Amino acid sequence: MLRVVIIGSGNVAQHLAKAVERSGSATLVQIYARHAEKLAFIVPEDKITASLNNLAEADMYIIAVTDDAIAEVSSKLPFEGRLVVHTSGSVAMEQLDSKNRRGVFYPLQTFSKNKDVDFKKVPLCLESEYENDYVILEELANALSDSVYNTGSEQRKALHVAAVFVSNFSNHMYALGSAICEENNIPFSILNPLIMETADKVNTLSPIQAQTGPAVRHDQKTIEKHLDFLKDNSRKEIYKILTQSIQNTNG
Amino acid sequence: MLRVVIIGSGNVAQHLAKAVERSGSATLVQIYARHAEKLAFIVPEDKITASLNNLAEADMYIIAVTDDAIAEVSSKLPFEGRLVVHTSGSVAMEQLDSKNRRGVFYPLQTFSKNKDVDFKKVPLCLESEYENDYVILEELANALSDSVYNTGSEQRKALHVAAVFVSNFSNHMYALGSAICEENNIPFSILNPLIMETADKVNTLSPIQAQTGPAVRHDQKTIEKHLDFLKDNSRKEIYKILTQSIQNTNG
Repeated sequence: MLRVVIIGSGNVAQHLAKAVERSGSATLVQIYARHAEKLAFIVPEDKITASLNNLAEADMYIIAVTDDAIAEVSSKLPFEGRLVVHTSGSVAMEQLDSKNRRGVFYPLQTFSKNKDVDFKKVPLCLESEYENDYVILEELANALSDSVYNTGSEQRKALHVAAVFVSNFSNHMYALGSAICEENNIPFSILNPLIMETADKVNTLSPIQAQTGPAVRHDQKTIEKHLDFLKDNSRKEIYKILTQSIQNTNG
Repeated sequence: MLRVVIIGSGNVAQHLAKAVERSGSATLVQIYARHAEKLAFIVPEDKITASLNNLAEADMYIIAVTDDAIAEVSSKLPFEGRLVVHTSGSVAMEQLDSKNRRGVFYPLQTFSKNKDVDFKKVPLCLESEYENDYVILEELANALSDSVYNTGSEQRKALHVAAVFVSNFSNHMYALGSAICEENNIPFSILNPLIMETADKVNTLSPIQAQTGPAVRHDQKTIEKHLDFLKDNSRKEIYKILTQSIQNTNG
């Protein structure tokens, strides 16, 4: 059984820890957290350490901390020549300290507290400094997910930017829609079927084919009515720039 | 059984026609289309007419044409005093010709060709000039959907703007993500689980709680890397303005 140590206690670390524990074919040996209380009820207490110097022996160390802290944490590891990976979409593998064998284990998903994720469906994007290590990364990835990809640094960077658009920015569109509902005493839940159907459509249609609404219809009357309705300047600006972009993209 | 005539042959008309046919508790008496061939295989040929003067007797006439054509079509109807509704989110009920009893039957969903929709889950937003007619609209709505709302014109306008944000604009975020994937030889399908999870999250979390990514983390390094990666000026601009808006909204 692959022995895994996770370093970090945020959303990615927690979801990953649960997935390893549940996999049955890899063992979570230990998890490092400066604040152990964040992991209460997620992993057994005796698996948590608050000191990097106490890190247990393992086949793989997964650094799941904020992007800015990855380089520093990796340089503080008190050992050499072991397999150390990070989970970030946008940090180069080379940011990891070169005293260890480096790699990337990037789960392409959005993780929130209090929202379970079916890890089997999470695409895992792998990268390794040495070919032999790729086999180890792949073994863990296959134990956790049905969807494993070998991506180079450039592709991973592109994927991360694409992910910001399809996930972070889409979610912000939901936030703006929700604010408009709230201001007009409409329950946001009325929009849920529309949100789910919009997401579901691009499983079978390309987003270009799936585009509907006043922008793609060049329905200038409705567009002007909407701009008139939006009193907030920032929302007006977003409405204009996205309408323009839809018209440029869809023709 | 409620007898329904649909006027129009676009996506909304087609999905509505199928829903009425399947409902079992309302009858599609007839459908008007200038180009009957658009409805081939969707409704039986003998139910299609290309002439407004041939319109059959019915309890309700549903005008499902483009927003700009609603007023004109309603004024051309060769009868008076009957119940005539439109299906638009953004057109006032009063745009319908006043010679008939007016109403609105607005399905809050995105309809595309070649993509079936579970009509039972489509929120239907109703409005009527006369109280007695609301009962008729409600009877049809309940026959087609489990989700029926009485919305005034102002609320409907707000909902339509909110729908543009959560659906049309989100879909455009998918289009931009898809373009980035294509340009980097990555299959867009790798993003589907992320897209579905992002949509699914706001069934249980508020969009504010669900927000993840570099903008909400104020991760300036990643934001700059992404802007540097985006060569296209329009995408750069969208990335900046949405990052700013997330930071203003989430604090």
